[in-house]
Amino acid sequence: MSPFETGLDRSAANCAALTPVSFLARAADAFADRLAVIDGDRRLTYRALDARCRRLAAALGGRGIGRLDTVAILAGNVPAMIEAHFAVPMLGGVLNPLNTRLDAATLAASLTHGGARALIVDAPFRALAAEALEAVPNPILVIAVDDPGGGGLAYEDLVAEGDPDFVGPGPDDEWQSLCLLYTSGTTGDPKGAVYSHRGAYLQALGNALTFGLSPGSVYLWTLPMFHCSGWSYPWAVVAAGGTQVCLRRVEPAAIYRAIAEHGVTHLCGAPIVLSMIVNAPADVRRPFPQRVRCATGGAAPPSTVIAAMEAAGFAVTHLYGATESYGPATICVPGPDWDRLEPGERHRRMARQGVALPTVEAVRVVDPGTLAAVPRDGATVGEIALRGNTVMKGYLKNPEATAATLRDGWYLSGDLAVQHPDGQIEIKDRAKDIIISGGENISSLEIEEVLTRHPAVMLAAVVAQPDAKWGESPCAFLELKAGATPPSEAEIVAFCRAGLARFKVPKRIVFGPLPKTATGKIQKFVLREQARAP
Amino acid sequence: MSPFETGLDRSAANCAALTPVSFLARAADAFADRLAVIDGDRRLTYRALDARCRRLAAALGGRGIGRLDTVAILAGNVPAMIEAHFAVPMLGGVLNPLNTRLDAATLAASLTHGGARALIVDAPFRALAAEALEAVPNPILVIAVDDPGGGGLAYEDLVAEGDPDFVGPGPDDEWQSLCLLYTSGTTGDPKGAVYSHRGAYLQALGNALTFGLSPGSVYLWTLPMFHCSGWSYPWAVVAAGGTQVCLRRVEPAAIYRAIAEHGVTHLCGAPIVLSMIVNAPADVRRPFPQRVRCATGGAAPPSTVIAAMEAAGFAVTHLYGATESYGPATICVPGPDWDRLEPGERHRRMARQGVALPTVEAVRVVDPGTLAAVPRDGATVGEIALRGNTVMKGYLKNPEATAATLRDGWYLSGDLAVQHPDGQIEIKDRAKDIIISGGENISSLEIEEVLTRHPAVMLAAVVAQPDAKWGESPCAFLELKAGATPPSEAEIVAFCRAGLARFKVPKRIVFGPLPKTATGKIQKFVLREQARAP
Repeated sequence: MSPFETGLDRSAANCAALTPVSFLARAADAFADRLAVIDGDRRLTYRALDARCRRLAAALGGRGIGRLDTVAILAGNVPAMIEAHFAVPMLGGVLNPLNTRLDAATLAASLTHGGARALIVDAPFRALAAEALEAVPNPILVIAVDDPGGGGLAYEDLVAEGDPDFVGPGPDDEWQSLCLLYTSGTTGDPKGAVYSHRGAYLQALGNALTFGLSPGSVYLWTLPMFHCSGWSYPWAVVAAGGTQVCLRRVEPAAIYRAIAEHGVTHLCGAPIVLSMIVNAPADVRRPFPQRVRCATGGAAPPSTVIAAMEAAGFAVTHLYGATESYGPATICVPGPDWDRLEPGERHRRMARQGVALPTVEAVRVVDPGTLAAVPRDGATVGEIALRGNTVMKGYLKNPEATAATLRDGWYLSGDLAVQHPDGQIEIKDRAKDIIISGGENISSLEIEEVLTRHPAVMLAAVVAQPDAKWGESPCAFLELKAGATPPSEAEIVAFCRAGLARFKVPKRIVFGPLPKTATGKIQKFVLREQARAP
Repeated sequence: MSPFETGLDRSAANCAALTPVSFLARAADAFADRLAVIDGDRRLTYRALDARCRRLAAALGGRGIGRLDTVAILAGNVPAMIEAHFAVPMLGGVLNPLNTRLDAATLAASLTHGGARALIVDAPFRALAAEALEAVPNPILVIAVDDPGGGGLAYEDLVAEGDPDFVGPGPDDEWQSLCLLYTSGTTGDPKGAVYSHRGAYLQALGNALTFGLSPGSVYLWTLPMFHCSGWSYPWAVVAAGGTQVCLRRVEPAAIYRAIAEHGVTHLCGAPIVLSMIVNAPADVRRPFPQRVRCATGGAAPPSTVIAAMEAAGFAVTHLYGATESYGPATICVPGPDWDRLEPGERHRRMARQGVALPTVEAVRVVDPGTLAAVPRDGATVGEIALRGNTVMKGYLKNPEATAATLRDGWYLSGDLAVQHPDGQIEIKDRAKDIIISGGENISSLEIEEVLTRHPAVMLAAVVAQPDAKWGESPCAFLELKAGATPPSEAEIVAFCRAGLARFKVPKRIVFGPLPKTATGKIQKFVLREQARAP
């Protein structure tokens, strides 16, 4: 045996399981008196947050919750949500954040499938939870947040009964399951992605590093924390020692108020959050001196939105990821020469999905058949494939879906993209969102990009509709800006003809609010059904 | 078995060994055309750096170097040093950076003890290496950098013979040994600290996050890369996707030139580097628009030096760490209210060693007997203890020293400190640097802090000398600034009396250059011997 393998073993001095729980212990030690959480008039220092998490863990442990027990939470962006992200893992349990915009039947299915032993319910979702629980066969301890008259066990009473110096067992091993996240349902088929302590620790560091978090950062919660565990930011902000600002309702006045009052430096959100910010009425806007970094995923923000965000004091960063990748897997890093580009071209590049986080092992755009990388030519479309420690362990109790998704050493995302010569990837479409018309592939994204340039259009979604002659043709759904003069279908068609090849122009235009998931993603499967109806 | 332990196994899709080698592959993919290395007129993009490292690894592999084989390197801060930090780990080998300022006998002892199979030698150290090699019994492949007439195998020829697309085996396991670093010898007793792939990966992320590195960062090599593998910055800068600027000779003109010409944003260095910067003659100073972040370890920089650095365009960050902790383990994070402090008080706080990096599991100031934490009162002195993944695996072939240093779940540093109520630690002294005079403990640091305030003093070191009456008394060694009027011994004593308790005033003053290690640390063991001589 080599001398490098002798007398150099792991010990408590030089090896610790990677777990995001460590970040809280470290922050409480390093930054005891600094602000960890702001929630309205309430303030928690890191000392207080740490003590509350230990109390919650101790009290849950006292109620019989332990290793690999599931604790579900149905809550908005409240302190209890942040606390649960540390307290449940401290016990070695599994946190299951639930989408608050789902119906009771879907929630009941998740609670049953995930085997929840406890459910923490935030006041606005009391009735929804009660309805869901009626359909769950196994007994669940219900804990009510901010809801003194709500019956059941009050969250604050539970926290009060725990020991503030409790030391939980934590995970046995860093591969241990940490979180269970049901995918948000753009496909109508929810699956429970399982995260590990190791993955969450690394994703938190990758996020903090690439989004520039530091102890001076003030992070505003405009992204739902139930979505991919808030892209792993509850842990990332604590890793950096920054401050988290809770936001119960994501609406323009509350966003501007928080930015101005708390010196917010960073926020994340779906494209809808950017729309809210740039379309905010003048009377709710507030001046602020800092530049606010704003990360967004999902659809590429149109150039006009990026320009309006910059004018309003925000710096936009585009990301790409999935529930299966703990949130962001790639980030758009501006090239050294982008400052010299004319704004339109610069904004088009900023809307790209970017390059792998340093904690991602590899991102490739591959041929879905051979899994070989496509040329980096900005033109050849392939599927985005990821690998590394920040890819989920798999789907809970679903080996078929796991095997189909984690295949040949890659996570296959189902998203279609090109890779540019500079290495940045750019999404062209979801595989299922490609419209095949007369044998030609049409990207629904390309049509949507043109439609959202129309001054009256707030959101656009294009799907395939059956077409007797061409097989499929594009059908556009448009949500208009509040107060905009509604354009006619003919006007929209003429607008598209000016910017698109003839065969790509939508054959049908439908006006009205678009169906969205809880995270602001448009539910194209709903629209596809609508388009299929005659 | 829990459903959270079934069908959710590690696979190539979701689990990869943590190794800093991954950062280079990712940077080459994400930032192929961005600058990785600047060395004089030479420029390496990430594509080029990656290809050169793969070539070097392939060529070393072709010469029989493989898993856990030691490759030593005796070099300044040249590109070969950066390349070796990736190429050798790619092969699963162990890199052993050697201190270029050591004598041939000590180097020979290291080469023999570490079992080096190859030695990469930079041109200026050719004669030194040749002398050392004469005393090494085992055959060593010598590779000459930048030294066409130097005989042996030329580094560039070796690189040229390798395959630029080579994929190395990497480590079998992330705990595998990665680097061997002989401690720099302030105690005269070198030991070989061994790093793991896992530790280096995490230290790189911790550094990049806490020092604020990003793809726009330009890092200047004013710290020797052979010292704790450059505090793990060869990996940290690549993790962030920044640019490394090589500097063959650390001297004021070269530092200012690099800052002005390459837009340097970050540098690290021993306190001697700060002295060089603030004492640089006017004719070598160069104006630059950016603020340069400058991290320093070792002795606390005096308030006057911090103030002068700020005036010259630098922001000083104080760190603390050791070879045994992959470089920095703590960093001084300014409190939110420090901007409002008067400069003297702010600078005193900035000279503290700070709080744990987020990747360090815990830092404590403990009672060396019981290992219980001392009160956070800023007064009770204890020993700094660390634990976590960024503590070394142990000392090579030295189980006694390993057991004495990694004890009861902690790395015991031998450094004495207090912990302030805000959590920041502040070093009071090395355990062996305390002077015990008439039963009173005297901190040599406190006396040195006063001495360095004297306008003629560049560097001060205080050690114990035998004292017939008091047991020990302080003896001061002073290195004066170039061009300063030399003060008399009486003048220095009078200066000390104005700022120190009577019993702390040095009983003897010695003028002259101070003996230093390669990293600018003063070799107190040499001075202690001198002070013991009558």
